[in-house]
Amino acid sequence: MTERKEFRDLAEPEAAREAIASLDLSPDPESVPLNEARGRVLAERVDAAIDVPGFNRASMDGYAVRARDTFGADEADPVELDLVGAVHAGATPEVTVEPGTCAEVSTGAVMPDGADAVVMVERTDERPAEGSETGGNAGSDDDGAGDDGAGDDRPARIAFRTSVAPGDHVMAAGADIAAGARALGPGTRLTPREIGLLSALGVDEVPVRGRPTVGIVSTGDELVRPGDDLDPSRGEIYDVNSTTIAAGVSEAGGEPVLYPHAGDDYAEMERLLREAADECDLVLSSGSTSASAVDVIYRVIEERGDLLLHGVAVKPGKPMLIGRLDREDGGESAYVGLPGYPVSALTIFRTFVAPAVREAAGLPEPRTATVEGRMALRERYGEGRLRLMPVGLLDLGDDSAADGESADGAADGGSADDAAADGPAGDPDRPLVYPVDKGSGATTSLVEADGVVAVDPDTEYLEEGESVTVQLFSPDVRPPTLLGVGEDDPAVNRLLDRLENPRYLPVGSREGYRRLRDGVPDVAVTAGPTDRDVDSVALGEWDREWGIVVPEGNPEGVEGLADLVDRDLRFVNRPTGTGLRRGLDDALEDLAAERGDSRGDLTDRIDGYGLTLRAFESPVRRVLAGEADAGLGLRETAERLGCVFVPLGDQRVVVRAATDRADREAVASLAAELDDDGIADLLAELAGYSA
Amino acid sequence: MTERKEFRDLAEPEAAREAIASLDLSPDPESVPLNEARGRVLAERVDAAIDVPGFNRASMDGYAVRARDTFGADEADPVELDLVGAVHAGATPEVTVEPGTCAEVSTGAVMPDGADAVVMVERTDERPAEGSETGGNAGSDDDGAGDDGAGDDRPARIAFRTSVAPGDHVMAAGADIAAGARALGPGTRLTPREIGLLSALGVDEVPVRGRPTVGIVSTGDELVRPGDDLDPSRGEIYDVNSTTIAAGVSEAGGEPVLYPHAGDDYAEMERLLREAADECDLVLSSGSTSASAVDVIYRVIEERGDLLLHGVAVKPGKPMLIGRLDREDGGESAYVGLPGYPVSALTIFRTFVAPAVREAAGLPEPRTATVEGRMALRERYGEGRLRLMPVGLLDLGDDSAADGESADGAADGGSADDAAADGPAGDPDRPLVYPVDKGSGATTSLVEADGVVAVDPDTEYLEEGESVTVQLFSPDVRPPTLLGVGEDDPAVNRLLDRLENPRYLPVGSREGYRRLRDGVPDVAVTAGPTDRDVDSVALGEWDREWGIVVPEGNPEGVEGLADLVDRDLRFVNRPTGTGLRRGLDDALEDLAAERGDSRGDLTDRIDGYGLTLRAFESPVRRVLAGEADAGLGLRETAERLGCVFVPLGDQRVVVRAATDRADREAVASLAAELDDDGIADLLAELAGYSA
Repeated sequence: MTERKEFRDLAEPEAAREAIASLDLSPDPESVPLNEARGRVLAERVDAAIDVPGFNRASMDGYAVRARDTFGADEADPVELDLVGAVHAGATPEVTVEPGTCAEVSTGAVMPDGADAVVMVERTDERPAEGSETGGNAGSDDDGAGDDGAGDDRPARIAFRTSVAPGDHVMAAGADIAAGARALGPGTRLTPREIGLLSALGVDEVPVRGRPTVGIVSTGDELVRPGDDLDPSRGEIYDVNSTTIAAGVSEAGGEPVLYPHAGDDYAEMERLLREAADECDLVLSSGSTSASAVDVIYRVIEERGDLLLHGVAVKPGKPMLIGRLDREDGGESAYVGLPGYPVSALTIFRTFVAPAVREAAGLPEPRTATVEGRMALRERYGEGRLRLMPVGLLDLGDDSAADGESADGAADGGSADDAAADGPAGDPDRPLVYPVDKGSGATTSLVEADGVVAVDPDTEYLEEGESVTVQLFSPDVRPPTLLGVGEDDPAVNRLLDRLENPRYLPVGSREGYRRLRDGVPDVAVTAGPTDRDVDSVALGEWDREWGIVVPEGNPEGVEGLADLVDRDLRFVNRPTGTGLRRGLDDALEDLAAERGDSRGDLTDRIDGYGLTLRAFESPVRRVLAGEADAGLGLRETAERLGCVFVPLGDQRVVVRAATDRADREAVASLAAELDDDGIADLLAELAGYSA
Repeated sequence: MTERKEFRDLAEPEAAREAIASLDLSPDPESVPLNEARGRVLAERVDAAIDVPGFNRASMDGYAVRARDTFGADEADPVELDLVGAVHAGATPEVTVEPGTCAEVSTGAVMPDGADAVVMVERTDERPAEGSETGGNAGSDDDGAGDDGAGDDRPARIAFRTSVAPGDHVMAAGADIAAGARALGPGTRLTPREIGLLSALGVDEVPVRGRPTVGIVSTGDELVRPGDDLDPSRGEIYDVNSTTIAAGVSEAGGEPVLYPHAGDDYAEMERLLREAADECDLVLSSGSTSASAVDVIYRVIEERGDLLLHGVAVKPGKPMLIGRLDREDGGESAYVGLPGYPVSALTIFRTFVAPAVREAAGLPEPRTATVEGRMALRERYGEGRLRLMPVGLLDLGDDSAADGESADGAADGGSADDAAADGPAGDPDRPLVYPVDKGSGATTSLVEADGVVAVDPDTEYLEEGESVTVQLFSPDVRPPTLLGVGEDDPAVNRLLDRLENPRYLPVGSREGYRRLRDGVPDVAVTAGPTDRDVDSVALGEWDREWGIVVPEGNPEGVEGLADLVDRDLRFVNRPTGTGLRRGLDDALEDLAAERGDSRGDLTDRIDGYGLTLRAFESPVRRVLAGEADAGLGLRETAERLGCVFVPLGDQRVVVRAATDRADREAVASLAAELDDDGIADLLAELAGYSA
């Protein structure tokens, strides 16, 4: 077995960027039909092959004349010309305009031979053929349909009340764009307007830069594709990185190819890596918890390729690998090994790999790929290597800065002196930035963070209000319009469904209330009593019934709290800081007081008191699964999931907004959903809920 | 025939917006595979159906223990436990951790029964089974591969140099996200990260908002689809609007359906309109020059639908129609009639229709759909109705404002006092905005303008430096990095191919030089002498040979300028203000002086002296087509197109940058292409060109 390389000499991030830039990912150009060309990039210059328009084109409804014949005409002294025919758009002229004659033309018509200008119909009068009484043309130009061909009622002569110069109201052949002229340059991104110009030129197949093909190889024994059956007892988890990175590849203009899982068959994994190298411009794998899988990758790179770089001084991303894989056909494929945790993999992909994919596809970095923000809190760093810190964003500026302008001098950031009186410091037009650190193993960080801030190795602090550049996870990421925190509650979940692009972090009542005080979120939801006052505005409230949830039929005959303490029941709890737990602890306090015990005496006797689960319905699900005899929960959950509910009390749920955010549009929308009708609607069909 | 409605009472633009908003374009939700879900919008909330992780998961390499067994352990006084087995990621544990025992675990492994915490391998030592000498584990954690299963060399006991609490280094089942928890809300746009979270939940079919289906009906007799044969003699032109609008529909999140041309068969056009209404959420048509086509649309709307609005007080877009079409199935389809000229059609689509399509698709307006800019010049308006003025953009800020910040107080715009000394006034970080008005019939305006500025009916002037909001033609539009103007020249075309995203307007030498003086473009290219001095820096220059181009074999035996004057030859000229024309006129001046005539005497005798064509090779193409006996042109063009060249002289082509732009990165890149090697490369293979 190959000796494993150690991460002793970590490369600088810049070296990693250069190593990736040195790889050739560029595919051959290709040709695509015009109607599939949007978003692609022209591979070569397109010159006009035809004149547009392809003929001298009348650009007004009126009469085609020889300009010379109109010289001297004016209102007082019109010139009369013989009408010899008509030409409509899409028809071949069947008349020639000889000296002394004219022909009716409609906009877009081919100018008949002999004519070199058009007089607008409004400046002409019809003159009857033989004493009939056809009046002026002015204002009657709408009746032109259907009188093609020389009908009997066509006037014999037209009077012109103005003179024209050659070329007047005529778009000469090639005047829009002439054959041989440069139409679009290489590297042009094709948006609707470029597609319009190509259409005008009659182009229906467009030479475009190829999309780099990016193979994604999964290397974890425990990974299962979404949609397939999962066996958690074997430690299986769904493969997050392959689909995330595949979507990132598409977004960067590449063509992702997912290779099947090799499971723990290393010979098969090696075969897949070689196959991917043969078929793709770039091969990506993401870190595996399996040491053997990494060894296979090493062996393939060393036997058939080059290892350019191993280990980068960046957090996350230290174990990044960069190399080249030889192909059967004598060419090379690029290889990058990404870290294994989802947020880390997406961060490293976005920072180091996506730019290379875009470059190969000929696409610029989208303008929306980064956002300037300001730190909502002071944060300490100084980790000795580049930190790509996951952060959430909250855009407070939408309301106050509709015109996108700010004359605020605080924009040059960095100093805590910029602090405003009632909110985080810094340019108020910039979104707030707050770190999200749930541990990089959490997939939910993917949607609780919006991007990363690169913090230099030698930065010790980011100050509150300091300007930072956030690299969004993708250009399509929109920061939420509202940030809520607090209790996990089914009515809150329904409420969130009615808002546009909210973010809610179910951190529990106590932590939510604390964060509201610290000034980051707009809104906090608490259940049960709160211990201190935070400057806030109550937007709405309701009551919910909580208690002990036991299996269908209540096989243990649980009747109340005392059963948990006194009997040998397996219980499942909720974490400290949640409203449910606060309710339980207060009830235990009362029971202990009744008995003359301390609460600790009682909780020591509850099997599972320390087993806490993160979501409000998790304890009930444990009960359902037969893994517990009783769980802390809501009547709502118990009834919805078909369990028996043993009530212990009601608690008040309150939605509060930070006082200085109460005027925000998003907060006002939330408040509107919490008026009397709104609350009634919200609580409908939620058992145990009341306004 | 239906009586035609007049545009007498034009609706306000706001009324048009409201009329469109009143139409229901929303399609039914649908379900798409996860790997096709990127960019789509969730139709409903997605709750977690499973716990993630689905099991208590070791989050470190080390040993699974009962935390209680490690209590009191420290460096000085380690605790030893019996090693009873190992669990690796993706495997079902086959051991139980009884009191006094431990099991080896790798990151991602299922925690074996009995164990409630993991001790990192670094804080442990192996103790040999019977006097063998296995050392400490610290630092040797990389050799774990392949020692799955209980080999003979597995140590019998492990010493723990630290204590752990229950849950340490274990991610509890559901700790990332628990079954029943709210994962993503309705209306969430699916970017790679959301796709990652859905993957973690095992979701492989995603409920998303439907894409509104938008039918596009072409109504011009003269329109031909790109790729089909064009007969210019019949006045045929390629259909620009259908493909442009189709691309715009896709960009806004809709599904375009192009209906075949009905030509001039009005019964067929009526059938297509009804078919489109039956099949689509919205039907669009763009104005036709054919009055009869508009009548058909009226008839269909009146017989089977409602006309909501006809004629809007906006330029362009006056003839906009908004209505509803009944469907066979009893439902309704929305209908909007767009103006006929390409820039007008795209402008009205972008301003009024795209927002409705996005709304129906559940997509927000992209952040890049508008740009704040500053007027490069003072412009006069006051047209009495809303003007959607096509404008070009030039982003000068890229270089100087890398951090995107400006403390410049001029940002609040509007006053001419803001004018800087050496460049247009206003916030220098904002791109310059200049009107593009080539006449709305020109398709090239599509790519010479980047978007439109809405100018209020009562605005009389836009001042130089005034802040304006530009609605880009699409969110993907990138303003050019360099704006060049001036002579149309094949070497310039080659030069442009080497630059990233330049824009070049071939307005001729004289107009280009004038615009350079007025301060909008970065660069001007002149051919031949210039009449006055403009503050500028020459970046490069070359000579080109010009003269008279005649057909292969020179059938008329043309030898020089005198032949044009003295003989009956059909000539084709270039417009005043081009370098070629200047060369010709100077040569005619000399000839006139020689003869004692005025130049006018001579030009009167040249048949076609007044027939000027827009592009540098157009006169040669006329000669090639047999429509002229001689054309003004370059040796390069003559030789490339297989004509005979009669030389009249050489002229100097000079590339000049505005002095205050010379330091721009884009100008420096251009200058770099114009060093000695660059020029040599540029002129290679261009006949008649020399450095």
